[in-house]
Amino acid sequence: MNKNAAIGIFDSGIGGLTVMAEMIKALPNEEMIYFGDLARTPYGSKSKETVLKFSFEIVQFLISQGVKAIVVACNTASASALEDLRQRVSIPIIGVILPGAQKAAEVTQTKRIGVIATRSTIATGAYVKAIQSLDPQIHVISQPCPLFVPLVEEGWLNHIVTRQIAEEYLFPLKTNKIDTLILGCTHYPFLCDVIQDVMGNEVTLINSAEETARSIKEILSDAGLLCIIRHDRKHKFYVSDESTRFVELGEQFLKEKIRVITQIDLGKGNPYV
Amino acid sequence: MNKNAAIGIFDSGIGGLTVMAEMIKALPNEEMIYFGDLARTPYGSKSKETVLKFSFEIVQFLISQGVKAIVVACNTASASALEDLRQRVSIPIIGVILPGAQKAAEVTQTKRIGVIATRSTIATGAYVKAIQSLDPQIHVISQPCPLFVPLVEEGWLNHIVTRQIAEEYLFPLKTNKIDTLILGCTHYPFLCDVIQDVMGNEVTLINSAEETARSIKEILSDAGLLCIIRHDRKHKFYVSDESTRFVELGEQFLKEKIRVITQIDLGKGNPYV
Repeated sequence: MNKNAAIGIFDSGIGGLTVMAEMIKALPNEEMIYFGDLARTPYGSKSKETVLKFSFEIVQFLISQGVKAIVVACNTASASALEDLRQRVSIPIIGVILPGAQKAAEVTQTKRIGVIATRSTIATGAYVKAIQSLDPQIHVISQPCPLFVPLVEEGWLNHIVTRQIAEEYLFPLKTNKIDTLILGCTHYPFLCDVIQDVMGNEVTLINSAEETARSIKEILSDAGLLCIIRHDRKHKFYVSDESTRFVELGEQFLKEKIRVITQIDLGKGNPYV
Repeated sequence: MNKNAAIGIFDSGIGGLTVMAEMIKALPNEEMIYFGDLARTPYGSKSKETVLKFSFEIVQFLISQGVKAIVVACNTASASALEDLRQRVSIPIIGVILPGAQKAAEVTQTKRIGVIATRSTIATGAYVKAIQSLDPQIHVISQPCPLFVPLVEEGWLNHIVTRQIAEEYLFPLKTNKIDTLILGCTHYPFLCDVIQDVMGNEVTLINSAEETARSIKEILSDAGLLCIIRHDRKHKFYVSDESTRFVELGEQFLKEKIRVITQIDLGKGNPYV
């Protein structure tokens, strides 16, 4: 495998750009290829089979672009499809669930961890399984927060309504006296101020994006696959539907300019103009 | 064309069942085939080209099932794809935009009409065009309400937060002194109590679902295509992804039991078990 090949990253939409932002910080030399499945976003309400089908199409596309490793920067796809994807490809492929779970298991003192995510991620039980495989003594309290993604996409990050919704969703986690809370959706770090405020400062928030960036760096390093030349940072962006909001919101998520975006039809698998 | 053939109806997801409920009331003898594109829902944030591509795949499927007419029970698909779809098929095909626009133009006294819908429906300008083609004197004020669909799907119909969000979204419509408001998304009639309360009783709400049912009845009648035998009401339901919430929410939307649901893969076009 070529050390100087790019790293592939994908998400159902824009949210995975928060993971890419952390990866750029942790791996400034690496070139990255991002895929956002805007035509079929979001995955959070869809079945395991459908999420696996869509994810595998994207993985095939990224491999056709010569990537050396793939980051599934979408909690729903990581929860529903990661194991199956691993069996189908030979390059390293990591998700966002295990890195977040590892960090939370490391940080908790009371062994009471909360997880907030989409309805579909929670339903897979992936966080509970991952955490309990690390330490079966840990008690995990899960809470789906379906309105958080639309609130972030609406840009209502500090709106009074967002605060009220956070209070309602987080109430069962507060009464269950967790000391660590995993933000199990790529959009949620945008609400970390509100979430921290509602939960109180004694609760540690775990941002899976940071942990995933750390984890892919370790994996590439262990496999001798870290890039050895400094790239001129020509990250590439592919989407399955045209969207002006991809650039608008995406640049906030990525904290960088998004220059060239190519739209491709996954049904055909070929880029078109 | 066989008068006793079924009527096809489709939506990106579950919302179109509110239109089907009105069609069952208006046309109790007719058999109906519903398609919900759960694998790719929602359409409200997607491009015109993508919505047209998805809609045409569904129309082809419905035609393969022998339907005599098709109702596009999705505002986004009606706004983005209806004209193109009409050029591609020979059976009657109607959307939800024109019926709602006609009723609003008929009802308004002050010639100031408001339209609320998804971001994508508003961006097409379809309601403005439809209303002004009926009466160019009418002033139309449009407002996207992206959080309304997730609020309905979360079941927060009378939640305090829903009221606050409605107040914020509807504020520009109130200050613009409209006398008629089109609910331009199939989910919005579920919020009609809150919306009416915020707008005040002097504003008439137009439910496109009712108007569309009236319109398809008229079209079938004019074409001599009304069913002449009383069916045993064996409506059929097809979806592109498995979803327990389709039945759960769908039965509330439809106000009837949903018995058999068949999942099909539109890529292949063939029903499978």
